[in-house]
Amino acid sequence: MQTKFQLDEDHIPKRWYNIQADLPSPMDPYFSPQTMKPVTPEELSQIFPMALIGQEVSQDRYIDIPDEVREIYRTYRPSPLIRAHRLEAHLKTPAKIYYKYEGVSPPGSHKPNTAIPQAYYNMKEGIERISTETGAGQWGSALAFATALFGMKCTVYMVRSSFYEKPYRKSMMQAWGAECIPSPSERTQSGKAMLARDPDTPGSLGIAISEAVEDAATHKDTNYSLGSVLNHVCMHQSIIGIEAMEQMKMAGDEPDVIIGCVGGGSNMAGISFPFLGEKLRGKRQVEAIAVEPASCPTLTKGAYAYDYGDTVGIGPIAKMYTLGHDFVPPAIHAGGLRYHGDSPLISRLVHDKVMKAVAVHQTEVFQAAVTFARTEGLIIAPETAHAVKTVIDEALKCRKNGEEKVILFNLSGHGNLDLGAYDEYFEGKLSDFEYPDSKIKESLTHLPKIG
Amino acid sequence: MQTKFQLDEDHIPKRWYNIQADLPSPMDPYFSPQTMKPVTPEELSQIFPMALIGQEVSQDRYIDIPDEVREIYRTYRPSPLIRAHRLEAHLKTPAKIYYKYEGVSPPGSHKPNTAIPQAYYNMKEGIERISTETGAGQWGSALAFATALFGMKCTVYMVRSSFYEKPYRKSMMQAWGAECIPSPSERTQSGKAMLARDPDTPGSLGIAISEAVEDAATHKDTNYSLGSVLNHVCMHQSIIGIEAMEQMKMAGDEPDVIIGCVGGGSNMAGISFPFLGEKLRGKRQVEAIAVEPASCPTLTKGAYAYDYGDTVGIGPIAKMYTLGHDFVPPAIHAGGLRYHGDSPLISRLVHDKVMKAVAVHQTEVFQAAVTFARTEGLIIAPETAHAVKTVIDEALKCRKNGEEKVILFNLSGHGNLDLGAYDEYFEGKLSDFEYPDSKIKESLTHLPKIG
Repeated sequence: MQTKFQLDEDHIPKRWYNIQADLPSPMDPYFSPQTMKPVTPEELSQIFPMALIGQEVSQDRYIDIPDEVREIYRTYRPSPLIRAHRLEAHLKTPAKIYYKYEGVSPPGSHKPNTAIPQAYYNMKEGIERISTETGAGQWGSALAFATALFGMKCTVYMVRSSFYEKPYRKSMMQAWGAECIPSPSERTQSGKAMLARDPDTPGSLGIAISEAVEDAATHKDTNYSLGSVLNHVCMHQSIIGIEAMEQMKMAGDEPDVIIGCVGGGSNMAGISFPFLGEKLRGKRQVEAIAVEPASCPTLTKGAYAYDYGDTVGIGPIAKMYTLGHDFVPPAIHAGGLRYHGDSPLISRLVHDKVMKAVAVHQTEVFQAAVTFARTEGLIIAPETAHAVKTVIDEALKCRKNGEEKVILFNLSGHGNLDLGAYDEYFEGKLSDFEYPDSKIKESLTHLPKIG
Repeated sequence: MQTKFQLDEDHIPKRWYNIQADLPSPMDPYFSPQTMKPVTPEELSQIFPMALIGQEVSQDRYIDIPDEVREIYRTYRPSPLIRAHRLEAHLKTPAKIYYKYEGVSPPGSHKPNTAIPQAYYNMKEGIERISTETGAGQWGSALAFATALFGMKCTVYMVRSSFYEKPYRKSMMQAWGAECIPSPSERTQSGKAMLARDPDTPGSLGIAISEAVEDAATHKDTNYSLGSVLNHVCMHQSIIGIEAMEQMKMAGDEPDVIIGCVGGGSNMAGISFPFLGEKLRGKRQVEAIAVEPASCPTLTKGAYAYDYGDTVGIGPIAKMYTLGHDFVPPAIHAGGLRYHGDSPLISRLVHDKVMKAVAVHQTEVFQAAVTFARTEGLIIAPETAHAVKTVIDEALKCRKNGEEKVILFNLSGHGNLDLGAYDEYFEGKLSDFEYPDSKIKESLTHLPKIG
């Protein structure tokens, strides 16, 4: 029985898939927080290259991947599709479990799939430096990797508490030549103002976004880059699902269920959209399950409404599931899933019932991660472990019902730099805190009024 | 131009290659430190399974890899062979550079190639638990991984200073279910004695070996396992070179030079022995360069003589290059290369001039690692960076001489858990300390008298 389904590099897809082409009606527009009107390409061009602004609203089903981008994808793509024989045997399930392993990229996650084209399009439009924010550091290190390979500069504003608690991610960015700055910093007006108010602040993703956007808006040679949420990011990630579709054919199976964890939504978009596009076109039956943390239950308990993408309210306003832009989820180890909102595309598909969503607790998530490590051998990122928890639940349901379902999930990253979280699990220190519904209801009263 | 040469899993080799079959005369025997006579299989069987004792002295050219071992190899093998196009372009060299990337294994290095068969043979002979020592943690985590997948127990004695300084390796072992104990410990007489003498000792690999061996010798269900140096370990690692030979054919090239870093010697043995076997049989021309740290110059400044394998002098006495068993190399970041001796097989080949050896300094090694990260995109282990330094030197020589040599090296592990070392490099804190020759001469006066 074969375990790994490996494509050679000639099979790196030549085009990305854009699910906007297959939606029954167009996406709601972004609004500008300054004008409270639909945002214009000119406004966006202060911080984004025109190529990406075009991709953000494109209705084309496929967009060609430039040769220079495919050239860098070769450093780690195509990623393997792996059959989890050992996990299946452990669970005694008749289900077949496959995973797409994105941890093979040098920064260790799916994030370079969009960092590489984002760096490329900026370079082509004459930009020399890219600024961004990072929480736990996955995105910052992916952009540092991508800019290094295109010979560009990169400035990463890293949430101050993470900067000191997870120094290895900073070291990684530095090894690739990026500048990594604890945020808030003295570099920007936003940072200075925050430090004046509270010199000991641990920082937040909201402030770090403000600093990175301000840096880009005030320097002509610099643009800003976002690692998730946006439509063009989801589209770049579709390379995961396109490869997986070809590899599932090699394996002689079709997925009945596709599972991924969701924070901003890009890895789930990546694995599922090419399959869901066929579902939207009536060519395929498939279930998709987005898994989020119960401590930040955007899709399962949030409102589908217009809200700010960032805490401070300077970024575009988007129609999405949200817990309110001032909702602050508790500190959990899956830092990449601590976002008050969600990708507008993922939100739309959940709202239209094309995709469903579930929420799981941190302790059961790490229990699943340990089962995975001791059967499949891979130590996975806490974010990915959310998907694995739901995969195990589905596989056990199959055992109970005697169903031979084919389950496909996205193993979005390895856990080599998250091992402290495993220690806390073994020491029984993990919290399963959930905000009461009343708290969520309250923060949803602060949404901006649009339309 | 193709970058990655990827074999599918049907091409995982079916047998290991044993270079002992191709040596012009047999290896010198091991001696027992108790009897000062050649060690007997009965003596070794206290701590090793008979299958491995047999492999240690086998003169067969090939030994079959059990199906159960190949089954676990599938979790990460075959590993890719990668053409370093971007490094070549950066160096403006006419040389072609290829590397075999062993960092794809779940513990992140080549070490599982031997941990898996060692766990397997012990399991087959009824052993339930394996004890071992680990310095920086690469070997301990590899054995934890392997024993997890065979459902065995594992106890790792980790040098106390590393245990506290590199907590992520301990976390990794724990995630795979192994028990990781700071050494010296209260578990063994050796540990207790050391703690009585010096309660604040940082520990050493010598003490950790003593504890692990004592643990195995005093428990019937437990054997001991070593991650490098021994003949059977080098043979298990030959899977690297066997795969590389097939992949070089796919690439349409033959290596003129093979380069690897050397501490105990197993990764260099793995990549080079299948090629050197053909050289010994007169079927191939190829140069092999073993790269060691200038701070621990075993092959370049040591004596070729009988010496103890461990500091305390309880393990077998072997004929090898050695700096003296009480030589304590300075703390460097390539912890895996801090060994006073070397594999008897590697030593023999260097002594017979089949392989040559060079020594390089820590600062130039990290400079090479940063060049590699910013061209090829991979952040490599400090050990591997020694090989990369020499690869760059060879490639620049080719530029100077206009030679189109084909260089193959073993990228033995990633640097995800060694990022602190990169920080020290950027902060200018790395030392290039070398012991004076007089110090080496002095410690060589303590060799045991054999034969």
